[in-house]
Amino acid sequence: MTQSIRTMRWEDRTLILLDQTKLPAEEVYLACRDYRRVATAIRRLEVRGAPAIGVAAAFGVVLGAEEILRQKGDLTTGLEKVFNELAATRPTAVNLFWALERMRKVVTTQQESDPERLVAALEAEALRLYQEDIETNERLGRHGAALLADGTTVLTICNAGALATVAHGTALAVIRAAVGAGKRIAVVACETRPLLQGARLTTWELQKEGIPVTLITDNMAGYVMQQGMVQAVLTGADRIAANGDVVNKIGTYSLAVLAAAHDLPFYVAAPTSTMDLTIKDGREIPIEERGAEEVTMFGGRAVAPAGVKVYNPAFDLTPARLVRALITEQGVIRSEAGKYNLRQANLVKVGQ
Amino acid sequence: MTQSIRTMRWEDRTLILLDQTKLPAEEVYLACRDYRRVATAIRRLEVRGAPAIGVAAAFGVVLGAEEILRQKGDLTTGLEKVFNELAATRPTAVNLFWALERMRKVVTTQQESDPERLVAALEAEALRLYQEDIETNERLGRHGAALLADGTTVLTICNAGALATVAHGTALAVIRAAVGAGKRIAVVACETRPLLQGARLTTWELQKEGIPVTLITDNMAGYVMQQGMVQAVLTGADRIAANGDVVNKIGTYSLAVLAAAHDLPFYVAAPTSTMDLTIKDGREIPIEERGAEEVTMFGGRAVAPAGVKVYNPAFDLTPARLVRALITEQGVIRSEAGKYNLRQANLVKVGQ
Repeated sequence: MTQSIRTMRWEDRTLILLDQTKLPAEEVYLACRDYRRVATAIRRLEVRGAPAIGVAAAFGVVLGAEEILRQKGDLTTGLEKVFNELAATRPTAVNLFWALERMRKVVTTQQESDPERLVAALEAEALRLYQEDIETNERLGRHGAALLADGTTVLTICNAGALATVAHGTALAVIRAAVGAGKRIAVVACETRPLLQGARLTTWELQKEGIPVTLITDNMAGYVMQQGMVQAVLTGADRIAANGDVVNKIGTYSLAVLAAAHDLPFYVAAPTSTMDLTIKDGREIPIEERGAEEVTMFGGRAVAPAGVKVYNPAFDLTPARLVRALITEQGVIRSEAGKYNLRQANLVKVGQ
Repeated sequence: MTQSIRTMRWEDRTLILLDQTKLPAEEVYLACRDYRRVATAIRRLEVRGAPAIGVAAAFGVVLGAEEILRQKGDLTTGLEKVFNELAATRPTAVNLFWALERMRKVVTTQQESDPERLVAALEAEALRLYQEDIETNERLGRHGAALLADGTTVLTICNAGALATVAHGTALAVIRAAVGAGKRIAVVACETRPLLQGARLTTWELQKEGIPVTLITDNMAGYVMQQGMVQAVLTGADRIAANGDVVNKIGTYSLAVLAAAHDLPFYVAAPTSTMDLTIKDGREIPIEERGAEEVTMFGGRAVAPAGVKVYNPAFDLTPARLVRALITEQGVIRSEAGKYNLRQANLVKVGQ
């Protein structure tokens, strides 16, 4: 399994992010030395993908703590602002809040330490999150690979790949692991409007590794299924409720309905950090709405008349009954009679 | 009902086409004085929409006949080349072949006329097709309007509007007629990748007439239905087989499956000239595949890595069982137990 794609690195007290808004045309890296720049990068989707934004935010906390230390401020009160600003960047993916919670625990438990020691502990925790993400995705990939028979073509949406995580990815980690196990796997990538993460990122990643990929527009998915061109649908997730409802990139729900209508399995690959067991039902998960210009503008050019009304939810909700199995680092969780009870699933969240 | 949008005009022995590739940014008109330019306009989608390309091709035949006459060539043999070149532009929409057949009949029945008289007869037939299209769509709209209750929000794809016909449209003629009858109707327009006819053309048309429209990306359709934001789906068609199978813009099939899953009616509005009763089953209808660059390039800018494999079918096939009713100028044809038998439907094709 190649490790060639790294979405982020922590070097020389700097968070270096591969700017995903510039791919595939340019491979440009952003150097973030200020937590505000990390927050901006998350908001602008320069770093995106539920696991990746969690880890990036953790390093943002480290940068914030170092700034407070340099300015001889009070860490405990000063960090509140840092946590709040990072938490306010994006509302849907729970990994962001989960990672910030991990960092906050360090502050709570090390409150009595001297400031330098607390900052060092925060850095160590961020690095742990970083390393855990890599290992989690490798394990998740191996568990999920068993679900894909040799010769399967998998339909996916958005980028649940290395670029959505520190490395390996979630849905694409499963594909990588299956290919690594010698299976012939091909991918059909939905371009994923409005921001084209499928066209720009998923094809780029898979091309780099020589995994066969065919790009389609999102509205072709049903026809591709009708033609028998794919045998499974596999996506990532931004948040999973205790009942197994999945919130993921807009378009995921349509794919799940289409998969059911064509008797194709619909799988979701996500680390347990994506599960929000405080939420009983997916309908309680906030769905981020983004600006109209994502839909109406393209490369600075208008593709719709001025002033047209736009609806632009960034995510949608797939009810658990449509999800054949959840693929996690702790194993594959299959639905029972179309239902999940993740509170009873004996999951051990990493780091808890 | 406004007549403000005219997709084409025949003036001064010239076919004037509103260049639809430039909308909504610019309202530019092309003057075609050569049948080859008409063929190019159809291929480039400067004129598009099944009824519109049929009428445009008919005027192409007139231009071809006039050229042969000027060059003192033999009309009957010379027109073969013209018919063949126009027929080869696009393979799926049957209205093209139907309109050319109408023109060919004039040649056959007037073979003995002198050349000037034959050209005049061809021009008269093209003008008849033009006028019939306007009247057909008005009738179709009135029939279909009865299906839309006051307060309905209709989801549509691509542009089955005035711009897809000479005037009024097919699906949008129904909406116009319902609004004209005093009903409050709103539209959700799928942007319709890759060429964004929904974003560029449908919103433009509806905005001009003050009919409320909300633009979404194609992958939002399922979520919009799940949220209860639409009460019906209404599309046009490029060809309808005798069993009621519908070939229309790529993405239509996904919408039909999604509508069924949400218990929403799925209607198709098309003139009887869109029905191909020689074809028993929709699977026999050729589906045009178009170039990869429609998907990978956007306004001259690459949105996918170089060399990526693309699948780009321009149309898809919606089986008759998913179509609640066909709306034609001769009335609404409802399916019986999910089936149609259009050969037994006592349809009188206009001009036949």
